[in-house]
Amino acid sequence: MGSPSSASDLPEPAVRRRTGGRAARVRGQVLAAVGELLVEDGCDSLTVDAVAGRAGVHRTTVYRRWRDVGGLLADLLDSAADDSWSPPDTGSLEEDLVALNQEVFDALADGPTLTTVLITASFRFDDAARALSRFWDDRHARSAPVVLRAVARGEAPAATDPRAVLVTATAPLYHELLLLRTAPDPALPRRAARAAAAAARAGALTAHAPAPAPTDADADADG
Amino acid sequence: MGSPSSASDLPEPAVRRRTGGRAARVRGQVLAAVGELLVEDGCDSLTVDAVAGRAGVHRTTVYRRWRDVGGLLADLLDSAADDSWSPPDTGSLEEDLVALNQEVFDALADGPTLTTVLITASFRFDDAARALSRFWDDRHARSAPVVLRAVARGEAPAATDPRAVLVTATAPLYHELLLLRTAPDPALPRRAARAAAAAARAGALTAHAPAPAPTDADADADG
Repeated sequence: MGSPSSASDLPEPAVRRRTGGRAARVRGQVLAAVGELLVEDGCDSLTVDAVAGRAGVHRTTVYRRWRDVGGLLADLLDSAADDSWSPPDTGSLEEDLVALNQEVFDALADGPTLTTVLITASFRFDDAARALSRFWDDRHARSAPVVLRAVARGEAPAATDPRAVLVTATAPLYHELLLLRTAPDPALPRRAARAAAAAARAGALTAHAPAPAPTDADADADG
Repeated sequence: MGSPSSASDLPEPAVRRRTGGRAARVRGQVLAAVGELLVEDGCDSLTVDAVAGRAGVHRTTVYRRWRDVGGLLADLLDSAADDSWSPPDTGSLEEDLVALNQEVFDALADGPTLTTVLITASFRFDDAARALSRFWDDRHARSAPVVLRAVARGEAPAATDPRAVLVTATAPLYHELLLLRTAPDPALPRRAARAAAAAARAGALTAHAPAPAPTDADADADG
């Protein structure tokens, strides 16, 4: 569940407010209960009272600290940024992206998982939506070295935008598994990673305005 | 709203059940009412009675034909497949994908739009989720010629998977605007289209198992 001292660069007032041993322990019990109830029943049946009961803390404690279900979901998401996660470093952009995609794939496939339930809930609770955006911003920031190392190795142009590469690699997984709801394809993590690495290599994911479209000569060069 | 004789290849029993002038007219009134109410208030406050009132038809007619809100949402989505939509044909894969992405961007940006509301509702109503998958399957099938024409022009290898190219091009838009909830970036449709075209050109979006990762020589060729 992580400690209140967050590894994230992002503001987490809800966490900073609650330092100290007992507060951290109560938070851990409450957020663990939220996670358990979400995976068991989804967010439709999640209530503050159910969380308090599962966590073994007084309901007024939960109401005072988290206000409502949206506040609980937001804090659970913020707590995920407390962890010591760091991106892979395989020595190759494509293999690093494959490893990142495999983590995303495992979190989304064969749902409902905690991840899919939290994403679904974010469409109903604004503060959960904001917390989810903070979580992904943190993951993208922590994963930027994957792209910066690739640039240093000459695998992509210097102007390559790390976030654009990471979104290009992971977006097809979210789209296929959450929106298109296709059966999980074990080949998808690698194919999406490979496509993002190829696009970065071709200079299609640079921060500045896109250059003119490549000519057929380029197509012959790599097709 | 489209006629009951669908342009889609996909089964639409709900539509086939209701042929004939009056039935089609009532369906048009009811689905138009669903769309209006969704954009006005979202799906939380959508009820069969509100739809009947707005459509000016008897509530029992709506209950008998559509059963519940999920059935109404599913039929609204199925009706969208009745239209005469066809993909762009600019003579270039990248420009065709830019045009497709611009349509998706316009449907998602500055939401809530009917599209974003329907996608949100799909997380709560299983039959709406299935109808949304049918809608996207139909769009992907209708857009396949964009990729097949590019292959014929030599812009991508013969084994290129049309659906993989279309998902690679559009997924970053859904991810940024619906999940990451970033401010709409007018440069996104072109950048995502450009990345998908580059990945297809590099042979990273073929149907068969991925070949070994390209070498730095390839990077030099197009970087």
